[in-house]
Amino acid sequence: MRRTVLALAVFLATTLFAQTPAADPPMLGFSTATAAKERALEAQFDSSLKRDELRDWMKRLSARPHHLGSTYDHDNQVFIAASFKSWGYDTKIEEFSVLFPTPKRRVVELIAPERFIAKLAEPPVPGDATSGQTSEQLPTYNAYSIDGDVTGDLVYANYGIPADYELLERNGVDVKGKIVITRYGGSWRGIKPKVAAEHGAIGCIIYSDPRDDGYAQGDVYPKGAYRNENGAQRGSVMDMPVHPGDPLTPGIGATADAKRIDRKDAEVITKIPVLPISYSDALPLLRALGGPVAPPDWRGALPITYHLGPGPSRVHLALEFNWNMVPAYDVIARMAGSQYPDEWVMRGNHSDAWVNGASDPISGLVAELEEARAIGELAKSGWRPKRTIQFAAWDGEEEGLIGSTEWAETHADDLRRNGVVYINSDTNGRGFLDAGGSHTLERLVTQVARDVPDPERNVSVLTRMRAHEAMLNMNAESRNAESKKEAHEHELIRLDALGSGSDYTPFLQHTGVAALNIGYGGEGGGGSYHSVYDSFDHYTRFGDPTFDYGVTQAKTTGRMVLRLANADVLPFELSTFADTMSRYLDELTKLAEKTRQDIDERNRLVRERTYEIAADPTKPFVAPKAEAAGEYLNFAPLQNAVLHLKESARAFDRAAAALPADATARQAAADQALMHIEQSLLRADGLPRRPWFRHQIYAPGFYTGYGVKTVPGVREAIEQKEWSEANRQIEIAAGVINAYIAQTEKNLETLRGK
Amino acid sequence: MRRTVLALAVFLATTLFAQTPAADPPMLGFSTATAAKERALEAQFDSSLKRDELRDWMKRLSARPHHLGSTYDHDNQVFIAASFKSWGYDTKIEEFSVLFPTPKRRVVELIAPERFIAKLAEPPVPGDATSGQTSEQLPTYNAYSIDGDVTGDLVYANYGIPADYELLERNGVDVKGKIVITRYGGSWRGIKPKVAAEHGAIGCIIYSDPRDDGYAQGDVYPKGAYRNENGAQRGSVMDMPVHPGDPLTPGIGATADAKRIDRKDAEVITKIPVLPISYSDALPLLRALGGPVAPPDWRGALPITYHLGPGPSRVHLALEFNWNMVPAYDVIARMAGSQYPDEWVMRGNHSDAWVNGASDPISGLVAELEEARAIGELAKSGWRPKRTIQFAAWDGEEEGLIGSTEWAETHADDLRRNGVVYINSDTNGRGFLDAGGSHTLERLVTQVARDVPDPERNVSVLTRMRAHEAMLNMNAESRNAESKKEAHEHELIRLDALGSGSDYTPFLQHTGVAALNIGYGGEGGGGSYHSVYDSFDHYTRFGDPTFDYGVTQAKTTGRMVLRLANADVLPFELSTFADTMSRYLDELTKLAEKTRQDIDERNRLVRERTYEIAADPTKPFVAPKAEAAGEYLNFAPLQNAVLHLKESARAFDRAAAALPADATARQAAADQALMHIEQSLLRADGLPRRPWFRHQIYAPGFYTGYGVKTVPGVREAIEQKEWSEANRQIEIAAGVINAYIAQTEKNLETLRGK
Repeated sequence: MRRTVLALAVFLATTLFAQTPAADPPMLGFSTATAAKERALEAQFDSSLKRDELRDWMKRLSARPHHLGSTYDHDNQVFIAASFKSWGYDTKIEEFSVLFPTPKRRVVELIAPERFIAKLAEPPVPGDATSGQTSEQLPTYNAYSIDGDVTGDLVYANYGIPADYELLERNGVDVKGKIVITRYGGSWRGIKPKVAAEHGAIGCIIYSDPRDDGYAQGDVYPKGAYRNENGAQRGSVMDMPVHPGDPLTPGIGATADAKRIDRKDAEVITKIPVLPISYSDALPLLRALGGPVAPPDWRGALPITYHLGPGPSRVHLALEFNWNMVPAYDVIARMAGSQYPDEWVMRGNHSDAWVNGASDPISGLVAELEEARAIGELAKSGWRPKRTIQFAAWDGEEEGLIGSTEWAETHADDLRRNGVVYINSDTNGRGFLDAGGSHTLERLVTQVARDVPDPERNVSVLTRMRAHEAMLNMNAESRNAESKKEAHEHELIRLDALGSGSDYTPFLQHTGVAALNIGYGGEGGGGSYHSVYDSFDHYTRFGDPTFDYGVTQAKTTGRMVLRLANADVLPFELSTFADTMSRYLDELTKLAEKTRQDIDERNRLVRERTYEIAADPTKPFVAPKAEAAGEYLNFAPLQNAVLHLKESARAFDRAAAALPADATARQAAADQALMHIEQSLLRADGLPRRPWFRHQIYAPGFYTGYGVKTVPGVREAIEQKEWSEANRQIEIAAGVINAYIAQTEKNLETLRGK
Repeated sequence: MRRTVLALAVFLATTLFAQTPAADPPMLGFSTATAAKERALEAQFDSSLKRDELRDWMKRLSARPHHLGSTYDHDNQVFIAASFKSWGYDTKIEEFSVLFPTPKRRVVELIAPERFIAKLAEPPVPGDATSGQTSEQLPTYNAYSIDGDVTGDLVYANYGIPADYELLERNGVDVKGKIVITRYGGSWRGIKPKVAAEHGAIGCIIYSDPRDDGYAQGDVYPKGAYRNENGAQRGSVMDMPVHPGDPLTPGIGATADAKRIDRKDAEVITKIPVLPISYSDALPLLRALGGPVAPPDWRGALPITYHLGPGPSRVHLALEFNWNMVPAYDVIARMAGSQYPDEWVMRGNHSDAWVNGASDPISGLVAELEEARAIGELAKSGWRPKRTIQFAAWDGEEEGLIGSTEWAETHADDLRRNGVVYINSDTNGRGFLDAGGSHTLERLVTQVARDVPDPERNVSVLTRMRAHEAMLNMNAESRNAESKKEAHEHELIRLDALGSGSDYTPFLQHTGVAALNIGYGGEGGGGSYHSVYDSFDHYTRFGDPTFDYGVTQAKTTGRMVLRLANADVLPFELSTFADTMSRYLDELTKLAEKTRQDIDERNRLVRERTYEIAADPTKPFVAPKAEAAGEYLNFAPLQNAVLHLKESARAFDRAAAALPADATARQAAADQALMHIEQSLLRADGLPRRPWFRHQIYAPGFYTGYGVKTVPGVREAIEQKEWSEANRQIEIAAGVINAYIAQTEKNLETLRGK
């Protein structure tokens, strides 16, 4: 009977009251009294945000191309620094010297079966005021492609990820000595030339298929937001999963006097030449391909039959670059904390763009600037943050997170000592909250999202985000009823784990500062990414015409900064991390099981000749070989560690929440404990084959690039079927979790005044 | 310990020996002695099959257009009849008189925002000898479209199924007074104008999107097998899920003196005009559409952004037909049985085509002719079938299964008395065995498939089909490990339940003769379906160039005919039907549960305003309304019936298998029991709203057309959320199953000699 009553109570609580905030909802890290003050402050903060400023700044900052090393890039940085100064911040510009190749020669030509020379140009379009600034625009290219002049038969390799080469092999297509053409998507672009080179290709072309961000998605620019036939996606192909930042100074700041390696020793420059092209340039190349028809999910939206090749399309690809050293300038603005000046709450967004970059990165940057201005105003009215706030505008993000990485490497010791949280943003637009980060921050993010109103609908951004997720889940046939229920009932936002792709990486994954990546989007649509069409005109027609979501971003990230800066005790929770680890462990055991079963199943099919029997004898087909059987892994060390982690984490969270308001020494100790606990998850010798990446729980995938791999040492070993390494990595992961527990237990004693 | 030994034995049996047939595998319906004779006969049958005959006949039969009512159609029938006669069959041509509209006027024109007149023509192509026979070709049109002359704004309605109109409504698009353009696929074509009319559209255009069978699938004709920009799919839009056959004589044979209804009372003629067009004709219409962008899975492969409309495309559609009565000729060839002359084993394929129809239907027909010739040879060598064999070549299949339906309606009483099995084929080609039919025949089909060699690989067609399924399963992420295991380990071929789309329908679903539909395919590819390009040249380049699969089809269906004709006792099993019913019941209970849960979930989202909150306010959006809650159904009557069915079925199968060789009277009784048991599953008043369809287990879907709905009364009531009707239909289904059980129990007593 009691169970029934309880079940009913839970039912009522979760269904009837789920959307109704209590009269005075708790605020993590604050007492009732300090929370009330914080709320008043946040209301004052909100009221001073002005969307016209965001618009004016975007217009100014995106008025001319402003890539790394360009005149206008530095002009912007000087303007940004002056702005921070005028708002009362202690501001400086830090300079680094970094390797930045720009094109000297770019040739893509089809030489057989017919002749075609790729335009490699994005022409001005009517109604776009900046698209005609051709003399200042960087041409379409991939930075950190090696120089090269190659000619070869063409092979279409889909997204160019390892599985795609397996399928080519099944179809009897070898890319050795060939040029591969791959389409954007499916992985970070830098993976494409890397994997192509691993398979023996001599060159790589990456094109934007209209299926992915062109006419198949919506009307093309300037009629609509999507990529037109001439739009091409610039972008870095530096091997960032190995390390980001300046290729010549891995692991150290690229200061004037830094010891640099030779360019030929730089691990992160591609092994083969690579160039991005538009779909009008790709069409003649793809149309002329012969060989097997590409499988259904390889086919794009061009009006052709997609073939794999090789040939008869024969392509000449020639690339030559100016391998210049250029200055990179980071703007850093600081407001010292009154109580904990050595605890740094950091907020950053990059300022450099590939061309005019109204969306990427100015849409995020102007929100950050507005936060800084509004917080400056709060300070002028007498308030001071307890903790130090630092705003940053990073340079050279597009080339490989260069500004943030060099800065974090230069200040690594300070960051390890003083870093509390790094809050990143980048592109922003109309739509839904998208939040990733360290899982200790799930409650903070959820509470902030609950308190920020959505500008389009009369609900919080939390409720709107959940409504959006509910719609996605309803449409996703694959999601089962249970996971839908779970998603609906889980109280907190599940933060996405961070892989890479923006400036949080050096903070989180190299120095161990807890990080967040926050933005809005999903309603703007568009295919202007890294093209000349990412302009003020494009953004104000499609991205966020009213700048309401710019202001909403400022309210969101500004609130996070303020709560982190003002809290009695840092608003972290260890138990949300512990729960997340428990989920990851579950994923890993299932992955190991499935990988083993898949090998078994496949080997059975090989043994029974099922591949050959099923294959069409009139088409080329190479049956796979049997592979070594999978092995059972010993997950016990990690399972035991995670079990204990949950207990310690809950005990710590309870103790931190129970600290009396006057226990200032113990509050300070709690701060120290919380701000440094993420560092327990790092190891000085990093991940296998990439020591720069030290975090053992979050990393970009070695073969996905941006896409995160959680518990990467273990996960990637299983994916690569390296069973001994997987067992070793389980021990290592268990080791960091046990260190985390030991540190937590020690901290807990301090908190309890023992 | 014993369990372990047993498990090991099962493991060895299923893994090591699965592909190794035993020395003398059993043959259902035969004793060891009669099986040996049957095997010898089948070897003789196989050895007389000649693929050159198939080629010669295809060349002759597809030499000129031969649609219903055409000169060459009858010329072919006379040739076929003469052939049957020459092989020793008692042959006749039966004539019916049926309504067959052909076009007098066809106009599709875009009148705004620009002007474009659709060509509506398939030009001759080089290398295709018959594509230029324009004077004899039927134009591209949909038979049984009503006459009409309408002008209206255009709306793109995807596949034109009910769910598509819900989505249009969500997007604020109303089709009332509009012309809809739908693409082929997703349902039988006749559903499209039916559902469009139900929603108030005034006209319907159906086009072949290149995604579905054009360049997105492969190179287009004549370079490759797929539909070129001018190819259009003719086809009937008669409302066949209500009833097939001549529209003026529902339920009765369309003999010269039949009582005919007035054309205006014919239920199966469309309510609005409808015409099929090619993708080159569709492109200008679709390109000019405005309104919301179509959702991702609505987008085809044309190089445009797909919009929903309505307008600004404005279309004029004008259609006028000659509503002529034409003769339909069925050729029927008969070889009387020696022991059971009143037990008819029937084998059929249609002879009429939309144009030249080399693939559809000649590829299947020539296999049937070769079977008939080879069986005629066996007879000349002294063998006689125990049971009567009848071969049929049906006319007017393309227009609505007219020849077979009129014949079955005319001979309904004979069929109910004498029909054993009807074995159908239609299009045939290179690839894998595809088998559907009554589930009492699963073991027969499996044993035949085990005994027929695949011409491309050195295995049986059973093993090859399984290898193909294994490959599909491996690639289908959605298939879970359990269902893969099940598919791998299930001993018998799981026959697809029959919906409609070929001539088995009147036999199975109207008169209750057990039926099979057998063919090969999956490797030919192609988009010649119902176009002038379905020619001898196309087929011999892509369909089955060597006619090896034509011969394989003859070996397969010929063997089925021979085993059914020669068996000691008919090779039926009731327990395979019982197992199938058990699976259907499981599906139905899950469907009911899911439908109820989905309503709940959707109503919750409506109540919490989740649809509005998630929607983009800059786009038209109409939130759905809450709907009546689902109801729990009483499945108990059907559950109890299926439980008892399994017991009775197994008891009967055991008793039939145990009949002594000399128990001829009881063998005859078993035959009578088995050949009539399917009729227990029919009810004289048929299915709700379509009395012609009497079978309570298998029917084409009311809103899918070809696609089967098993236990249709119950399933469609649940799908339509008609809970009271679902409960009534459960009772009805339980009633037929109980009748089946009662009949089986009675038969069982006879078998046991009681």
